[in-house]
Amino acid sequence: MKALIFDLDGTLVDTVYPHVLAWQLAFAEAGMPIEGWRLHRRMGMSGGLFKRAAARELGRNLSDEEVRTLDRRHAELFHQLLPTPPPLPGAVELLRFLRENKIIHGIATSNRRPMMNPALEVLGVGSETVVVERTDVARAKPEPDLFIECQQRLGVRAEECYVVGDAVWDLMGARRAQMLGIGLLSGGYGEEELIRAGAFRVFRDAADLQNWLDELGLLP
Amino acid sequence: MKALIFDLDGTLVDTVYPHVLAWQLAFAEAGMPIEGWRLHRRMGMSGGLFKRAAARELGRNLSDEEVRTLDRRHAELFHQLLPTPPPLPGAVELLRFLRENKIIHGIATSNRRPMMNPALEVLGVGSETVVVERTDVARAKPEPDLFIECQQRLGVRAEECYVVGDAVWDLMGARRAQMLGIGLLSGGYGEEELIRAGAFRVFRDAADLQNWLDELGLLP
Repeated sequence: MKALIFDLDGTLVDTVYPHVLAWQLAFAEAGMPIEGWRLHRRMGMSGGLFKRAAARELGRNLSDEEVRTLDRRHAELFHQLLPTPPPLPGAVELLRFLRENKIIHGIATSNRRPMMNPALEVLGVGSETVVVERTDVARAKPEPDLFIECQQRLGVRAEECYVVGDAVWDLMGARRAQMLGIGLLSGGYGEEELIRAGAFRVFRDAADLQNWLDELGLLP
Repeated sequence: MKALIFDLDGTLVDTVYPHVLAWQLAFAEAGMPIEGWRLHRRMGMSGGLFKRAAARELGRNLSDEEVRTLDRRHAELFHQLLPTPPPLPGAVELLRFLRENKIIHGIATSNRRPMMNPALEVLGVGSETVVVERTDVARAKPEPDLFIECQQRLGVRAEECYVVGDAVWDLMGARRAQMLGIGLLSGGYGEEELIRAGAFRVFRDAADLQNWLDELGLLP
């Protein structure tokens, strides 16, 4: 194995809970209450799918105008709730270690700029790192496009890549991309949910993952 | 089986995610960042145990002054984030059905008044319902005291009670009280986590539970 492809929210930065609450408040404001746990279990999937799933639970379609309002309010509320996203334990150190030891890695996220700029900043990720975002591909997770785009930019084969993520959408996308998925508990999924979605291994967080890089065959 | 004893937050009202974020922000303000998922997995346990667990993760004890500040800021932030707690799907209807059909039930929560008054209000729970709160017992969940106090006030035997909760602490407390635990997914735990903690059955939410009251042996 040669490379690690990371999800961002819930994997490298501790942003899942404010994202859930920002969506919960945005939907409630629009007169469409959706429970926190259902939003939580949809974090990290494509925004289009997310809104379709929400519409299914509400039992009606959302208009384009409603979707735009939800997106805008989510972004505003998220920024109010958490102006500076905290890195998850070990994330900054792991990324630094990978850079210093020339272990190939990148980030592939359903998030997008400028929304995710503060996260990249606290992680110390600069232009040296391959970052694939939502707007770089046609379809987001659980489609494999983000991971495949990242893998191609990294110049390695799919079978040589691990995908590291906190959500079942990461693990499903990894399988469809012919990559091995590694689950992290830091996004609030249960361990068995990640294993059932196809995780090859499950670690607590980035710090825990770093302890096992040798067993993953990533150390020289 | 004769009675249902309900947890409150995450079981009847959709408050888990704002509680997590309020704690996350309160700890961060105090210079003690703790990840959202770790706080999430400790929701619903005794406040004393919760702060001891937090201290263990921080690697040092919290002073009484720090604990008071955390409690105060959590309460303030929670109220700002969610002034009116939304009932979870089916919760209001289930409680009404139980009252109308004279099915014995009560609420037993690690929460306390006045913090939980808005939740009881949106649920339509008045003085006709037995509500046991943190201050009524010496020790909160996962100790069985809250459930035993509730069961005694309801005038039934422990073996005749189901405990309905969203957290592993409810299910552990239920087992120690000699009651059967029913897990709900509405607090954001994974199904297997609830089963592993001893859930006799797992339902999505209160609405789903109501569909199965007959199989639980609670309908006349």
